[in-house]
Amino acid sequence: MTTQASPSLTAIVLAAGQGTRMKSTKPKVLHTLCGRPMVDYAIEAALAAGCGDVVVVVGYGRDELAAHLTKAFGDRVRTAVQEAQRGTGDAVRSALPALDPAAERVLVLCGDTPLLDPAELVRLAGSIEGGASVAMLTAMTEDPTGYGRVLRDADGNIFAVREQRDATEEERRVREVNTGVYVARSGFLRESVAGLLPNNAQGELYLTDIVAVASKAGGVASVRAESAAALVGVNDRAQLAAAEDILYGRIADRIRRAGATVRATARIDATVVVEADAVIEHYVVLRGKTRIGANARIDVGSVLTDVEVAPSALVKPYSIASDSTIGENAQIGPFSHLRPESRVEAEAHIGNFVETKKTVVRRGAKANHLAYLGDGDIGEGANIGAGTIFCNYDGFKKHRTEIGAGAFVGSDSQIIAPVRIGVGAYVGTGTTVTRDVPDDALAISRVKQENKEGYASRLKARLKAGAAKKPSDG
Amino acid sequence: MTTQASPSLTAIVLAAGQGTRMKSTKPKVLHTLCGRPMVDYAIEAALAAGCGDVVVVVGYGRDELAAHLTKAFGDRVRTAVQEAQRGTGDAVRSALPALDPAAERVLVLCGDTPLLDPAELVRLAGSIEGGASVAMLTAMTEDPTGYGRVLRDADGNIFAVREQRDATEEERRVREVNTGVYVARSGFLRESVAGLLPNNAQGELYLTDIVAVASKAGGVASVRAESAAALVGVNDRAQLAAAEDILYGRIADRIRRAGATVRATARIDATVVVEADAVIEHYVVLRGKTRIGANARIDVGSVLTDVEVAPSALVKPYSIASDSTIGENAQIGPFSHLRPESRVEAEAHIGNFVETKKTVVRRGAKANHLAYLGDGDIGEGANIGAGTIFCNYDGFKKHRTEIGAGAFVGSDSQIIAPVRIGVGAYVGTGTTVTRDVPDDALAISRVKQENKEGYASRLKARLKAGAAKKPSDG
Amino acid sequence: MTTQASPSLTAIVLAAGQGTRMKSTKPKVLHTLCGRPMVDYAIEAALAAGCGDVVVVVGYGRDELAAHLTKAFGDRVRTAVQEAQRGTGDAVRSALPALDPAAERVLVLCGDTPLLDPAELVRLAGSIEGGASVAMLTAMTEDPTGYGRVLRDADGNIFAVREQRDATEEERRVREVNTGVYVARSGFLRESVAGLLPNNAQGELYLTDIVAVASKAGGVASVRAESAAALVGVNDRAQLAAAEDILYGRIADRIRRAGATVRATARIDATVVVEADAVIEHYVVLRGKTRIGANARIDVGSVLTDVEVAPSALVKPYSIASDSTIGENAQIGPFSHLRPESRVEAEAHIGNFVETKKTVVRRGAKANHLAYLGDGDIGEGANIGAGTIFCNYDGFKKHRTEIGAGAFVGSDSQIIAPVRIGVGAYVGTGTTVTRDVPDDALAISRVKQENKEGYASRLKARLKAGAAKKPSDG
Repeated sequence: MTTQASPSLTAIVLAAGQGTRMKSTKPKVLHTLCGRPMVDYAIEAALAAGCGDVVVVVGYGRDELAAHLTKAFGDRVRTAVQEAQRGTGDAVRSALPALDPAAERVLVLCGDTPLLDPAELVRLAGSIEGGASVAMLTAMTEDPTGYGRVLRDADGNIFAVREQRDATEEERRVREVNTGVYVARSGFLRESVAGLLPNNAQGELYLTDIVAVASKAGGVASVRAESAAALVGVNDRAQLAAAEDILYGRIADRIRRAGATVRATARIDATVVVEADAVIEHYVVLRGKTRIGANARIDVGSVLTDVEVAPSALVKPYSIASDSTIGENAQIGPFSHLRPESRVEAEAHIGNFVETKKTVVRRGAKANHLAYLGDGDIGEGANIGAGTIFCNYDGFKKHRTEIGAGAFVGSDSQIIAPVRIGVGAYVGTGTTVTRDVPDDALAISRVKQENKEGYASRLKARLKAGAAKKPSDG
Repeated sequence: MTTQASPSLTAIVLAAGQGTRMKSTKPKVLHTLCGRPMVDYAIEAALAAGCGDVVVVVGYGRDELAAHLTKAFGDRVRTAVQEAQRGTGDAVRSALPALDPAAERVLVLCGDTPLLDPAELVRLAGSIEGGASVAMLTAMTEDPTGYGRVLRDADGNIFAVREQRDATEEERRVREVNTGVYVARSGFLRESVAGLLPNNAQGELYLTDIVAVASKAGGVASVRAESAAALVGVNDRAQLAAAEDILYGRIADRIRRAGATVRATARIDATVVVEADAVIEHYVVLRGKTRIGANARIDVGSVLTDVEVAPSALVKPYSIASDSTIGENAQIGPFSHLRPESRVEAEAHIGNFVETKKTVVRRGAKANHLAYLGDGDIGEGANIGAGTIFCNYDGFKKHRTEIGAGAFVGSDSQIIAPVRIGVGAYVGTGTTVTRDVPDDALAISRVKQENKEGYASRLKARLKAGAAKKPSDG
Repeated sequence: MTTQASPSLTAIVLAAGQGTRMKSTKPKVLHTLCGRPMVDYAIEAALAAGCGDVVVVVGYGRDELAAHLTKAFGDRVRTAVQEAQRGTGDAVRSALPALDPAAERVLVLCGDTPLLDPAELVRLAGSIEGGASVAMLTAMTEDPTGYGRVLRDADGNIFAVREQRDATEEERRVREVNTGVYVARSGFLRESVAGLLPNNAQGELYLTDIVAVASKAGGVASVRAESAAALVGVNDRAQLAAAEDILYGRIADRIRRAGATVRATARIDATVVVEADAVIEHYVVLRGKTRIGANARIDVGSVLTDVEVAPSALVKPYSIASDSTIGENAQIGPFSHLRPESRVEAEAHIGNFVETKKTVVRRGAKANHLAYLGDGDIGEGANIGAGTIFCNYDGFKKHRTEIGAGAFVGSDSQIIAPVRIGVGAYVGTGTTVTRDVPDDALAISRVKQENKEGYASRLKARLKAGAAKKPSDG
């Protein structure tokens, strides 16, 4: 869901930490889930919830992170630098100068909570309308160990968040916990964050301390998250894998509800589009800017990255394609490999153990078996026999091969580029094509088969004795 | 489990709806789970529970659905048409004329509940014996939201089913809900359904209304489902995927308990047979009428559709086969592709990047590497070298290749069909075989290798400068 | 975790049963999970918990089991034979003569509980220090049906374990159950087991009976297992698959926490090592003694068995390798097949549909497409063209091919071994190499291409009419 963006609502996303438990030189929030960096999910949730812009607080790996944000979000996202890790309160304080002065409400989230539901953020932002200084997203959990407990007075009003280590026995039994997601009034946020003190063992500034302040000001509103997903923070790569699996399930369910069939074992990245009535079979992996057209079928285990599959195309099992297009009613696979810049047009067929690269396979052309077709242009309706090789590389340069419409290239031919085979031409089986073949010509290079009768058993006897090479040394 | 069929028990399966949330032109119940249309599971459950026959109420897409039912179930299943969607009561009313008049009890189920357990249906049918007019299958659920609540009086007798929208606060707290599965006495069903009135917002006839009627007649018996699976109805493709995954788990567990090893990630369709001590590895997909013999091993990611695998055969990773047979102790793969009508006999080997089609590979024959073997018959113990191609297609027709027993076909040979290579014959490496090779003959077509000393560096210099083609233009 | 081994703690692992529900001729505990026999997990847990040695009680299939234990554990594990299946008490009795006389405490576990946590065994062994005769591991479970209930007196002291069939209604409501894991004082164990009587329907000796005895001697200590995993016993292959899936999750999480990225769908055997910052993609299967170096990436669906992958190597989708090594920054796949004794050195590339076997591919050499490279040695920086075949087999023997450094082998060449292609040599496209090529020589065997103008349409007309073979019969 996406709510209309409002300049009165802005967001701060906390993303300055290294995430030492990730054991990585890469900033934690740049680790990917379903093909997108973790931080993107928090930002997308904020934007979908109606935030006019987003300030991301960066620290560890700030250059790498800022570069990603600019590339992915352009000017909808700005960064603010937290110089040292002095707690969540300090992080928000770092962001304040960068906040849009027109913003009345500020959504605060963490960059490592990729499962937040924008609908709940909208509800949260709405809950502050009654006049509260802060609204917080809480969650009920069976096992609250480790979370900050949400403390309410007899009237049910929140008056504080108590961290695990500071909680009494009774407080520890509270099962409503803090998710770390807030919406605050701008003015209140600026004032309360300015007043934070490092009164704790770590000597850090805790954002949670503003809850108690708010309870004595305009009050604390709250929204209870419908599922525990809001609590899923990613701190190590085991949590990353678990969160990613949940996200894969959500992505697939969204596609299913829109009318495509997706087996439970398929893995579709967040960036992929699948149209209605497409079928995505077991163990398929779809990545990047891949788009699957209506009624297309992607069979078991195919891996498509940045591939445009037209409606009603058929991709048979274990086909791999990258940065390529597959036309309507075209058939690929099984075991086809389309390397970048392959264009398989409508009704064309690429079969098993066939590799293409920077090659156009025009309408209705076929290469069904065991071939390497690099740097080529194969004309409409042409037929490329099994074992054909476009010899595009001479050890130094790559050269192009052109096959005319309706041409027939016999099996096991080697086409030495640069070369052109004409329209309607016929290349005999096993031919080494070294120069152009005119339209309608037959090209052939052939040694006549010789049969030496009764010779096989004699040869085998010699081979068995180790006394001969194969008949090839003759 | 299967209970002896009884003419006194019959079934009505409700399958007239379009299932608009499936977003498909195909009738909802024809969407498949584990290789079978959804409706088959309800029908199979009814038959396994002892129903003598089954009447399926059809409506949307009735012709497509009826055609499927005839093909899948023959005369064990009849159809009755519900002309318009006027509720479950109306659907049952539509079925009444088609019911076997001899049936004393009628099982009513929905065509979109593929997870029903026949054993519970048997218990349900038995529970009516005490004299009740209707027996209903209920289920306990943590979250009854949306389900019809089962209302019981102080004695525990069911007196009504209350839909969510009509329930009081107290009734809503009831956690026992209606599954929509009933067994009714025939006479009572005919009478009570005839008396249904469309007293509701939708103006439809609700089958659940017969429960209240029954409570004032012979009473309402009930059976509580042991798991919540009985509640799983499939209304969109997300629910379809979830139900399918549960079914895959059940199928695999059934096979495991019978003594085969099946990894948790394998996906075996409902129609497949796997014998004891077979091993089905990770990510294997078995479809259709596939049968895996005892002690056979199907390794990672292989996809078999309608394939007969004999005992002790070995199918290595990522082999794909359809409509083919694999003999005892034969070995296939990895990366083999057996297209329809391939027959790999006992002890034969098909290796990596080898494709067969309409080809017999006789006992002990081998084709271990990179080959296309279409429309062929390969004799016992023959050896087909790497890169061999059966050139079966001349651009117009397909032709057959015959290889005699014990023949040796050297690597990279092209066998231009129609042609016969004799028993024990030897084909030299790289030969283009254009005419028959007699038994025991050596066939060869070869140009003698020429070495031009010191020429390679000169050639490379010229190629590097772009001044030459490869030595092939010579 | 591993605790320092102590001679004062020893272990008995019960593994004499056939496991009839496995429906297998193989002893139950030899069925594998994640690449290791089930019994290994219990033994490893005992050793990790600090046991100085382990006595495994064998019975059914004792020779096969003993042979495995010797191979896997050497002299850290001894076996004792239980001649007939007379219960767990009898099994322990069989083990007593083989116990280290110096052992003060004895850990008793079952060989079919592969999910035990060594940390809990350490806690259990520690809990007996207070003077108890026996310490038992218990577990809380929602559904205790079928388990022995742990009975405690008013002071919370355990006084007996009551089997399901002997329990009163009240006792059946107890949710604390016996896991079958004990630590006993040696002297007490010897005495109490000697005193066991077959006072039960089966006429067997039950080890659980020592609990009641202990409660009247030094007392019964206990440790409650933190999860229900301690209760997971494997009795059939469905339970095997479920337990295995849990273990796969644990293995992957351990690797993730150490700093590698592992997708949720990958399956990594217990014997595999994955270094930090490696990436293991969807559906990858890693088996045996495979080791993945830092920063290496193993892409979708690759299957590696006993393969050493050096740091920063890239294994593209659907590569299969066994008993081979892949060097730093080398690239493999997609669809590569490295058969045993392949060595791909640093910076070398093996591409799609390429098979190697007993072949060295030296630094920077490349074979990117469609090739069979068996029994070869490919020199540094050499380039092997598409479709190249090392003809290593003459029908009787295998021969070796040597390619010199920097050589260029043109596409579709057949290299008939034994043969040597010299350093810097150039082999023309489609050459059949039958004899050695000197360093820097050009080798070629070529028939000049002939173009027959206007002939293609005439030929096609004849083929269409069925009146001609392909131009190959010329």
